[in-house]
Amino acid sequence: MPSPSLLLSRRDLDFQLYDWLDVESLTRRARYAEHSRETFDDALELSERIATRHFATHNKKNDQEEPWFDGERVHTAKEVSEALGVFAESGLLAAAVDEEFGGMGMPHTVATACFSYFHAANVGTSAYPFLTLGNARLLCAHGTREQIDTYVRPMLEGRFFGTMCLSEPQAGSSLADVTTRAERQEDGTYRLFGTKMWISGGDHELSENIVHLVLARVPGGPAGVKGLSLFIVPKYLVEPDGSLGERNDVVPAGLNHKMGYRGTTNTLLNFGEGARHRPGGEPGAVGHLVGEEHRGLAYMFHMMNGARIGVGAGAMALGYTGYLKSLAYARERPQGRPLAAGGKDATAPQVPIVEHTDVRRMLLAQKSYVEGALGLLLYCSRLVDEQRSAPAEEDRERAGLLLDVLTPIAKSWPSQWCLEANNLAIQVHGGYGYTREYDVEQHYRDNRLNPIHEGTHGIQGLDLLGRKVVQGGGAGLRALGEAVHDTLRRAEAAGGEAAELAGTLRAHWERVTAVTARLWEGGDPTVALANSSVYLEAVGHVVVAWIWLGQFLATLRADTRSDSPEQEAFLQGKRQAARYFFRAELPRTGPQFDLLAALETVTLDTDPAWL
Amino acid sequence: MPSPSLLLSRRDLDFQLYDWLDVESLTRRARYAEHSRETFDDALELSERIATRHFATHNKKNDQEEPWFDGERVHTAKEVSEALGVFAESGLLAAAVDEEFGGMGMPHTVATACFSYFHAANVGTSAYPFLTLGNARLLCAHGTREQIDTYVRPMLEGRFFGTMCLSEPQAGSSLADVTTRAERQEDGTYRLFGTKMWISGGDHELSENIVHLVLARVPGGPAGVKGLSLFIVPKYLVEPDGSLGERNDVVPAGLNHKMGYRGTTNTLLNFGEGARHRPGGEPGAVGHLVGEEHRGLAYMFHMMNGARIGVGAGAMALGYTGYLKSLAYARERPQGRPLAAGGKDATAPQVPIVEHTDVRRMLLAQKSYVEGALGLLLYCSRLVDEQRSAPAEEDRERAGLLLDVLTPIAKSWPSQWCLEANNLAIQVHGGYGYTREYDVEQHYRDNRLNPIHEGTHGIQGLDLLGRKVVQGGGAGLRALGEAVHDTLRRAEAAGGEAAELAGTLRAHWERVTAVTARLWEGGDPTVALANSSVYLEAVGHVVVAWIWLGQFLATLRADTRSDSPEQEAFLQGKRQAARYFFRAELPRTGPQFDLLAALETVTLDTDPAWL
Repeated sequence: MPSPSLLLSRRDLDFQLYDWLDVESLTRRARYAEHSRETFDDALELSERIATRHFATHNKKNDQEEPWFDGERVHTAKEVSEALGVFAESGLLAAAVDEEFGGMGMPHTVATACFSYFHAANVGTSAYPFLTLGNARLLCAHGTREQIDTYVRPMLEGRFFGTMCLSEPQAGSSLADVTTRAERQEDGTYRLFGTKMWISGGDHELSENIVHLVLARVPGGPAGVKGLSLFIVPKYLVEPDGSLGERNDVVPAGLNHKMGYRGTTNTLLNFGEGARHRPGGEPGAVGHLVGEEHRGLAYMFHMMNGARIGVGAGAMALGYTGYLKSLAYARERPQGRPLAAGGKDATAPQVPIVEHTDVRRMLLAQKSYVEGALGLLLYCSRLVDEQRSAPAEEDRERAGLLLDVLTPIAKSWPSQWCLEANNLAIQVHGGYGYTREYDVEQHYRDNRLNPIHEGTHGIQGLDLLGRKVVQGGGAGLRALGEAVHDTLRRAEAAGGEAAELAGTLRAHWERVTAVTARLWEGGDPTVALANSSVYLEAVGHVVVAWIWLGQFLATLRADTRSDSPEQEAFLQGKRQAARYFFRAELPRTGPQFDLLAALETVTLDTDPAWL
Repeated sequence: MPSPSLLLSRRDLDFQLYDWLDVESLTRRARYAEHSRETFDDALELSERIATRHFATHNKKNDQEEPWFDGERVHTAKEVSEALGVFAESGLLAAAVDEEFGGMGMPHTVATACFSYFHAANVGTSAYPFLTLGNARLLCAHGTREQIDTYVRPMLEGRFFGTMCLSEPQAGSSLADVTTRAERQEDGTYRLFGTKMWISGGDHELSENIVHLVLARVPGGPAGVKGLSLFIVPKYLVEPDGSLGERNDVVPAGLNHKMGYRGTTNTLLNFGEGARHRPGGEPGAVGHLVGEEHRGLAYMFHMMNGARIGVGAGAMALGYTGYLKSLAYARERPQGRPLAAGGKDATAPQVPIVEHTDVRRMLLAQKSYVEGALGLLLYCSRLVDEQRSAPAEEDRERAGLLLDVLTPIAKSWPSQWCLEANNLAIQVHGGYGYTREYDVEQHYRDNRLNPIHEGTHGIQGLDLLGRKVVQGGGAGLRALGEAVHDTLRRAEAAGGEAAELAGTLRAHWERVTAVTARLWEGGDPTVALANSSVYLEAVGHVVVAWIWLGQFLATLRADTRSDSPEQEAFLQGKRQAARYFFRAELPRTGPQFDLLAALETVTLDTDPAWL
């Protein structure tokens, strides 16, 4: 085994990728035929090495010396640029993109695992390439060949970075209220005018160029989200030969100063302010339409599953590294004596705090959150691979349905519970955890972003209950039910403890379906959706219990066993974390389902004047 | 009514102090005969005014420009010193101390309310006087008349500040492992040698002198906590005439850099390093024994209830101001349209986000946490007043029993749930809440300290289940049960909805007693205490439900009613928050009690090697 890392557990990644999800079987499909376990392992090792040596090393500096804006240019620490150079050279970004677009076509599942090392090491710096990847994937799906050649190739080479410009100061969750205007020109280009808010990577000097993907409104189009179109707006115009031309009229108006995630510049961007830049003398920022007019949001949504799963993966990675660091601390820090080890006898030596039951509770809870979240995200990534490569159309469709219904959970569950893991990681460290001398307080601050961006927690709840479980006559929920029942049958066949856990999960799944039906049987969406966040949280816990049952089963398979005491302890820990989740976590859902089934309206009925 | 403040709700304070807890009745007792509702109101108004004008104004600066150490001196922002000057002049510190020691003998309940304004405005700056007050109260209880004259009077005048020096780098939760040494001198003084960690207010230039209260070990004493003695160690020695003499050998070795609470210096302090200060040429820091040798921890514990309730009050105040700020934001920020208000019709105007049910959920949850926590803390403070002033000894004893059993909850419940309130306050603000342009992210960071200091969450759980509910044959829990049943009887007599809520609470209280008995019936403390944190959380929620039932009943009393629409809306809001707590919060305890009743050992059984 490689040496232990405090970013992620490679042993766990191997277990989840190979023993549980059987990612190696993908290499038998044409799409991944160039790959092998060896190429996967190489990519994982390369990721761990670069993340450890070039990203983790400046994570604190990124936080303490955040990017700053001199009124014209945005400055970042030199280590950011160096790390991104190494990352670009590694080819890892291209690894995750299809070969036809210049990539290496690695399975999404393996790419998710690889990229998690970078999130765990330094979310601030990692955000630049991962935003670029999201941008590149969107263009690969909806751009013209020329657009792909002009913008995607330099992105995969690390020369251009990308952003997504959706929000505006007055339009965050409500994209229907976006007002940025795009005026069609005679030459087929557009001129954009407006202000975009919360643009991560919106300006910097880290790349030769920045490719903004911008939602804007072509005058005369429909109101609301149906009138949004998508544009490529480069910071520097790109000449036909690929060289950089004039500076476009995209100007940062200021940076947002955040609680965490400080290493990523986050800007207010003005388009077409005209104050300083007017290419060709004409006002407006030059934009190139992606696809057709008025279909911009559909293109964005096409990429939204990926972006949301990416948020969940970032949250998981921060939770995971916090867990490993608090575990390492708990094994080394002596403090006190449990009753069984002498109790109040102060002449006995102090014990490492991992010996205290309550510290083990906090570690086991973290383990159950972060390994459960990793499982959920790898499972979802595996669905992306199925959707792309399963031989039977029926399997591809099923994967798509499952992915749709799981996305709000894959985004929000890790954002909630891996943040809680970071909270517990601080608590394990005691006062030291509250200081900036240790890492965990930064992880906690960084992670607090995740329940907010790419659709808040509340938006995910509405998406799950108001859209995903009802659309297509409930096909998504049925597909998920079939997947759950498949695991239940295998667990029941295994007998013993697995069958017991299956019985518990079966009862909980029945509550999911019964409560979903109950919520919608009245037909009043205002009442049905009144507690959609509670629904999201309860279903999330049931889904993660199912993920844990899958991992529990995988520990029982003969080929996961090993004679090494470390692997044996690892498998024991997996099973114990599964037990913990079933006994201490899953029961939380009981009162949540009760509240939902009662069609509780206490919040709905609250007059704002009473608050 | 005074103008609305975004620190605390004065309307709520009036309701809780006067309508619910009938604090005015204390003025009929000899001890508080000098006071009246008028003096209470004056103190509340004065507190709100000073907190608003002199403390809130530099709260952000305190965070952004934290104290720094030049290797010799600690520097703080000048606004800190100015605010503390105004505070000292106000006489509020003395207000909370008995007249015999130079104070004004205000009821503790009113003092708690007054001081909460300062916590809400600026925890960093407020910590200095409140630490000083804790120090002064300890000396009033256990110091000699000369010690009180020498140290307490200048503290009440604002000239000296105080600290508590318990922890050491190797001894945080485990005070049995304190090693600081105090050598007895022939003149009756002591010389101290050692290092203290996490000393809030440990060094600064904000006061003429700093009075450290230090736990140390006189050689030859018993091992463990029974060998700890308590010493006064002033930064500057005090001459018999009260003037300042030589610098004592107490030297800051560095500051801790925290995630929040940055305005309070937090130091590593060396005693008797001798490198720079040797009064009289002798090595060691000069210390004066408080009380008797080896009884130091008992003196500290005497003050611990107050300190722990103070932590809860600080957590509550941060939660409270975050609630008011997120409420104000939600009433003003337009975003989207709920289904009932046009839904997807983008031509309809956007609504303030308070119109969205999920935003109201987050506000109502905050309200239920912060007003519930305020109630719990005022109730505990009222018990302090009962303990001091009830005419019948039996009542004073009962108040002491209740206070003992409630203290771990009063410390930990607000630290957990008002931190969660701050989490929700950020979420209500969306992306803006994650920026340092708004206040709530700082509240969240500041509040994260509270589950750690003055005994961690885990320590409070052990204190409640391992000590408070079992000591004296369970007298504390019985006293609490009687107080709960008194409220239940009144609620049942009131009938209607109050009686319904009482029925729910009665069932939950029965679970508390049954589960407590079940945990201890096996007689194995290791098993009984294996889930003590879960016990703490479950009992905490039941206790706060009881506090809410008390407030619900108070809204029904004729004399709390008013013809003003604002007061009517306030009372409706109180009742709605109580309903929310009973329907959405109290049921959380079901699975917790189930886990406890099952004597679950999943964490106890976890081998550290499995993690």
